[in-house]
Amino acid sequence: MKYLLMILFLPALLQAKVVTEMVAYEQDGVKLEGQLAYDDAVKAPRPGVVVFSEWMGISPFSKGKARELAELGYVTFAADFYGVGNNPKDVKSAMEISSKFKQNRPLMRQRALAALGVLQRSPRVDQSQLAAIGFCFGGTVSLELARGSAPLKGVVSFHGGLEAPLKAPGQINAKILVLHGGDDPYVPDEMVRQFQEEMRTAKADWQLVAYGNTVHSFTVPDAGSDPTKGVAYNEVSAKRAWAQMKTFLKSVIE
Amino acid sequence: MKYLLMILFLPALLQAKVVTEMVAYEQDGVKLEGQLAYDDAVKAPRPGVVVFSEWMGISPFSKGKARELAELGYVTFAADFYGVGNNPKDVKSAMEISSKFKQNRPLMRQRALAALGVLQRSPRVDQSQLAAIGFCFGGTVSLELARGSAPLKGVVSFHGGLEAPLKAPGQINAKILVLHGGDDPYVPDEMVRQFQEEMRTAKADWQLVAYGNTVHSFTVPDAGSDPTKGVAYNEVSAKRAWAQMKTFLKSVIE
Repeated sequence: MKYLLMILFLPALLQAKVVTEMVAYEQDGVKLEGQLAYDDAVKAPRPGVVVFSEWMGISPFSKGKARELAELGYVTFAADFYGVGNNPKDVKSAMEISSKFKQNRPLMRQRALAALGVLQRSPRVDQSQLAAIGFCFGGTVSLELARGSAPLKGVVSFHGGLEAPLKAPGQINAKILVLHGGDDPYVPDEMVRQFQEEMRTAKADWQLVAYGNTVHSFTVPDAGSDPTKGVAYNEVSAKRAWAQMKTFLKSVIE
Repeated sequence: MKYLLMILFLPALLQAKVVTEMVAYEQDGVKLEGQLAYDDAVKAPRPGVVVFSEWMGISPFSKGKARELAELGYVTFAADFYGVGNNPKDVKSAMEISSKFKQNRPLMRQRALAALGVLQRSPRVDQSQLAAIGFCFGGTVSLELARGSAPLKGVVSFHGGLEAPLKAPGQINAKILVLHGGDDPYVPDEMVRQFQEEMRTAKADWQLVAYGNTVHSFTVPDAGSDPTKGVAYNEVSAKRAWAQMKTFLKSVIE
């Protein structure tokens, strides 16, 4: 009987009890709200990971990824980048609002640091074990945090833009992992080359994985399935990239 | 007492009992001799991996790597490329003899296929589960096997040259993993770009990992420790690359 009960309850025992809560925060007067996720059965401080969304803003996708990470034992925060009620309604608005940050890297860093601050104020988080990941625009954001010498152990960019308009970067302490679609027309070979040159000059600890047959947004199921559009979900590459990120995070925060 | 004995013998039980034997083979009359390695406790056919050495020829390094792979459960064969007694005595000779193969890709393929043939004739090997790996020159060789449509599930190049002088490659069935030093002067950015273009055209399943602060021969402890020479061992990148290879092989042969 005892064993029967154990078998019946085993799935519940094995599944992390991840809870999520929305947390309000601010940056220079802009009201933001992101999603904190953690396993509430764990009492000791845990490594923290901030998750930056694609250019459409905080979304079920980015919150879902942050939740998946929390199931691995991290305390995660899905960042809001544009402010409550400000998510763009369409791609044109997304391009406009994200460009504002792309062209103003100090603002991008401040907005990103505000999100990181939520983890930095949480007693659930081991403050020596912080990392950031991001998707598309969010990948660019997470790299920008590293360029700004944020106190991160690691940064992962999924199909993020790699350009660095702010020259003379500060010291890059975070280890860098770039997960790149080998055929991404928005992150062309020349941009990759310049990024590698930047990393060399900064003497950063960097790794770049290029996935074949893979274009922009390859981890995003909503990105469609037609690579000729330059944007498409690729399940194989998405799985490889997620596994790569897991191995990387294990090696930099634990 | 029973438990004490178990504890005493546990290390022996956990360690794979890898045995090695030298196997003679031929290609077009050239007498070759490589090292077969396997866990002789395993009776069922196992996936097979052929290991191609750097340009100095079959060596304690390449035999050691093949043995490490055998400890993971594969049947491995450390290939001989130049023939018994023909290993070059110095770098100058190595350049000459390896160039002969680099400039004659059909010969390179034939020599490589002869090594694969040893695994193909072994009853210990599951013939549907073959892969090839190689280091430096051997990385080039393993890629050339894939280009020649060898019956491989996967190919891994460690800091191999990526050039493809034989145009119009056949269909590439093997999945490709290139582990590349991001600062390797012998595999410059332009060669990487051309390789990616080749893979795109061939619609191969390819992945390329570039490691920062890493030059040629980065997995080879004998390569020294001065990256300014363009050739140097890098322990961090060597470990990352070996782990990457393990994950890859698990996903393509098992």
